[in-house]
Amino acid sequence: MAGLRGVYNIMATPFSENGALDEASLRRLTGATIEMGVDGITVLGVAGEAQKLLDSERRRVLETVMDVNDGRVPIIVGASQNATDTTIAACREAEEMGAAGVMVAPPFYLQPGPALTEHFRRLGETISIPIILQDFPPSNGVTMAPADMAALVNTIPAITTIKLEDLPTPQRISQTLGLIEREDATILGALGGIYYLDELRRGASGTMTGFAYPEALVTVWRAWDAGDRRRAAEHFYRYLPLIQFEGQPKIGLAVRKEILRRRGLIATSAVRHPGPHLDQGSLEDLAETIDIVGIDREFSL
Amino acid sequence: MAGLRGVYNIMATPFSENGALDEASLRRLTGATIEMGVDGITVLGVAGEAQKLLDSERRRVLETVMDVNDGRVPIIVGASQNATDTTIAACREAEEMGAAGVMVAPPFYLQPGPALTEHFRRLGETISIPIILQDFPPSNGVTMAPADMAALVNTIPAITTIKLEDLPTPQRISQTLGLIEREDATILGALGGIYYLDELRRGASGTMTGFAYPEALVTVWRAWDAGDRRRAAEHFYRYLPLIQFEGQPKIGLAVRKEILRRRGLIATSAVRHPGPHLDQGSLEDLAETIDIVGIDREFSL
Amino acid sequence: MAGLRGVYNIMATPFSENGALDEASLRRLTGATIEMGVDGITVLGVAGEAQKLLDSERRRVLETVMDVNDGRVPIIVGASQNATDTTIAACREAEEMGAAGVMVAPPFYLQPGPALTEHFRRLGETISIPIILQDFPPSNGVTMAPADMAALVNTIPAITTIKLEDLPTPQRISQTLGLIEREDATILGALGGIYYLDELRRGASGTMTGFAYPEALVTVWRAWDAGDRRRAAEHFYRYLPLIQFEGQPKIGLAVRKEILRRRGLIATSAVRHPGPHLDQGSLEDLAETIDIVGIDREFSL
Amino acid sequence: MAGLRGVYNIMATPFSENGALDEASLRRLTGATIEMGVDGITVLGVAGEAQKLLDSERRRVLETVMDVNDGRVPIIVGASQNATDTTIAACREAEEMGAAGVMVAPPFYLQPGPALTEHFRRLGETISIPIILQDFPPSNGVTMAPADMAALVNTIPAITTIKLEDLPTPQRISQTLGLIEREDATILGALGGIYYLDELRRGASGTMTGFAYPEALVTVWRAWDAGDRRRAAEHFYRYLPLIQFEGQPKIGLAVRKEILRRRGLIATSAVRHPGPHLDQGSLEDLAETIDIVGIDREFSL
Repeated sequence: MAGLRGVYNIMATPFSENGALDEASLRRLTGATIEMGVDGITVLGVAGEAQKLLDSERRRVLETVMDVNDGRVPIIVGASQNATDTTIAACREAEEMGAAGVMVAPPFYLQPGPALTEHFRRLGETISIPIILQDFPPSNGVTMAPADMAALVNTIPAITTIKLEDLPTPQRISQTLGLIEREDATILGALGGIYYLDELRRGASGTMTGFAYPEALVTVWRAWDAGDRRRAAEHFYRYLPLIQFEGQPKIGLAVRKEILRRRGLIATSAVRHPGPHLDQGSLEDLAETIDIVGIDREFSL
Repeated sequence: MAGLRGVYNIMATPFSENGALDEASLRRLTGATIEMGVDGITVLGVAGEAQKLLDSERRRVLETVMDVNDGRVPIIVGASQNATDTTIAACREAEEMGAAGVMVAPPFYLQPGPALTEHFRRLGETISIPIILQDFPPSNGVTMAPADMAALVNTIPAITTIKLEDLPTPQRISQTLGLIEREDATILGALGGIYYLDELRRGASGTMTGFAYPEALVTVWRAWDAGDRRRAAEHFYRYLPLIQFEGQPKIGLAVRKEILRRRGLIATSAVRHPGPHLDQGSLEDLAETIDIVGIDREFSL
Repeated sequence: MAGLRGVYNIMATPFSENGALDEASLRRLTGATIEMGVDGITVLGVAGEAQKLLDSERRRVLETVMDVNDGRVPIIVGASQNATDTTIAACREAEEMGAAGVMVAPPFYLQPGPALTEHFRRLGETISIPIILQDFPPSNGVTMAPADMAALVNTIPAITTIKLEDLPTPQRISQTLGLIEREDATILGALGGIYYLDELRRGASGTMTGFAYPEALVTVWRAWDAGDRRRAAEHFYRYLPLIQFEGQPKIGLAVRKEILRRRGLIATSAVRHPGPHLDQGSLEDLAETIDIVGIDREFSL
Repeated sequence: MAGLRGVYNIMATPFSENGALDEASLRRLTGATIEMGVDGITVLGVAGEAQKLLDSERRRVLETVMDVNDGRVPIIVGASQNATDTTIAACREAEEMGAAGVMVAPPFYLQPGPALTEHFRRLGETISIPIILQDFPPSNGVTMAPADMAALVNTIPAITTIKLEDLPTPQRISQTLGLIEREDATILGALGGIYYLDELRRGASGTMTGFAYPEALVTVWRAWDAGDRRRAAEHFYRYLPLIQFEGQPKIGLAVRKEILRRRGLIATSAVRHPGPHLDQGSLEDLAETIDIVGIDREFSL
């Protein structure tokens, strides 16, 4: 199994104002995202608010996305849980429902060591779809050095891809790649794309992240993948002001959902409580940033 | 609704060696714990490994405990989730299944402020059983000052009790009580009982914690509640070496389950992976400590 | 005393390869920075590696900068220490040596509350120059809500300015300003300028931060201060790719010093051990970024 | 150089009510501590409030202690700084002033890896007295696994002793000893003695910690070192209630200084601001605990 390449969109989970799953918006968002040319979709990530869903709601999101997708693009499914047994249950369920891979971060505060290796070893023995190892300290308090991530990839064949998101991502991607002994494994960038170009420069095979204009990330990737380094930079730097605005820690998901709402892809920008809200000034500055960047004119639906 | 008083045992969740829920042990442990004279039982706490259970497993634990208890003592149910909607779902389920109260900690990294107040306000409006507010930073990264906890209790009538476990607990219990304006609210100590006596000295109305000899905590409480301060101290100091041994951060749950296994209350000391293990030296030192304290002779089953 | 306005450069402290203070570079850097049109200079900040200097070295840096400056621009001096008495000593020394103000962050892990207020109250009574309150959790583990910062400003007259750097800075600047009851107090942005424009949009009166092209920050400020919002954005977005590159957590100071070295302003890019290093790939990507942005042609010395 | 053995007292630094160094108390405390039979004294540790002293005050404390000691017991000197160069300066100064060893924790947030090894390698090359490696995450945010500490000891001959204080200390002492390949290196327990007996059981060669009755720690050690395991336990368990009371996180130093004041060893219990205070209830409970334990009668001066 070769590692993932290209742009995998971490998809938001739409809610109605009262906090209920908004299945109609989820269908519209899924269909539109696929049509934007992404290489795949990742559901039930942190930015999909998976940690705020019941087990039954997670299943419903996955069913809906699978139904809309109808086999068009690979669907990766977030399956991180705090115990190995429950992670296995989530991975099995994802595989049975048609997932092309599972994204798994280390359990809460389980630092690198034999117990973490054992966790992934058991997962790898249980499922036959690839594992995307997620490196994202804010979600679980786990810090993995490049040597730790490389050791996991070298030891667990099921891990084909790392979604690397502890800063500085570019330098860490390069260091980790230098320690991976497998030809087929890849690393994807993340973090809303704020260091996307530098991640590509240091060896990333694309990105797995959410940004409310996935087309922009696709545009950069196509130029880069075609070997046109300078054009990739021109595209990226043009979008950077909005990528940066959306990438603000703590309120980023509210910005993203507000843009998706403006684009007509979801009905409301509601984040499940407790979650961030944008005040009036942020809404105005967002509108001004979109206008100056002109991304809404470049990628109108 | 008056706040809780006395000894509420945070009950462990037994697993077999392969990690599956061990329902037979759960039945035995529940029955025995009730017979030890505790004032109530709390299931699905952090020390009950609730965060390592599927939603369906949590239901099964609760059903089993309710069935064995058969109305003898109040059962408090851990219902902490990361979103308000999912917490409401867990609280409702607990109430429907007969819980006498729910124990709820703030969602992951939701520091005190309007959003946290709103979280508890919504819970309070949804259920008609009391809420036990859990103060335990290691589980969620949330630090509540005495003024924060008191403000929640003063604002949300459904919160009748605080399980206070950020150190130094004795001084913080006293400070918080001084700021609470309701007569009926209480604070319980915690942390495996390592500061149990000092918590009582500063105004705690008992403790809600796990210790493998719940009878010992009951003995201290009965002396204290009868006004015999000196005898409560004598009991507590006699048990302290084992309370302290079991209270070791990171491995404490493995110690507790090993003692419960030695007592014949559960079949194995297995903690769900990833979890702590005791090495041979720890097992020997535990045996020596129990022997010196003589608690196994005092509370033989 | 009115709060600060404009661009205050957090100046780097140059070292030779063996780690010794490089006074010649310090003189050259100070002189050049003043000539770039900054409104002031801040020495002995975190990015000036103050925490890696002996008390005697801190004095020497300050003496040197004061000597070169010769009264041309206000010099703000970092004076954060872990005890109130030692902070007072550092503040007094700064004042005696001619500082225009002191920058003080809360002591290590001293969260907002009466003890923190007392800390600043005592400082305010001791010195007659203004205090710049620094909000930077990574340096001390202290998180201050907008209400906490506003309360300090409203209570302690000596605090005239906040250097606000906990994300999301733009929204938090606006919230904090809304709670400050004094007309004369100001808030400056920070963080290497990565959200500089949005900070200005939400009410910042400039920025106090390090960036290896301080002229760029001055250019943005002059356009903004003249009321030309759109031109400020054009300038900022043009520089953003390099600001973003330099703003990388953990390696940012190494990037900054490397650019300063390339510009001929300091002799080596050495950071005191332990500190970050740039690998060959980072050096190449930095050169490419500078070249694409063209900032070296815009601001040649 | 063989590792340390026995009881090394982490000595408090006395202040007068106004926060000034109280040299008379420092002299009295030093003399009395030596007469209590400790094997050595450690000054300028975290519990000595070293991080709240000016460089000049640290020198003065050291001079005073050296003067009173007059060569009677080995004096270990805390020399942790955030840069290698400044740590070297502190170590050299300590050596020149007669220190028998230096206690050094990793710089702030410098996790195990090549840069940390390099830090200690340079220290080892600079001084000819032994280094005591301090493992205490709360002071610097650095977590060292047993393998990390053992690797440092195996690599840097100057490190002869580890002061191990990340919980669970007993099990980690045993694991670390199992990975150390040198015969002469030792590990000492810490944390105010709260797990002192268990640390000895797992291989500690004594303890380096502060407790206001150092004689009690000496009594336990003498029994243990004479091979009388059961008597060591009896002594330890008798003192445990007070050790536990003093060991309370956040307020422990205030408890310790209050006991020292009660014993007449220091003039005031002042901790430098910002620091903990004991409220009236804590003072009363402390008095009751001392009275029940009877330690004041056992070790009257």
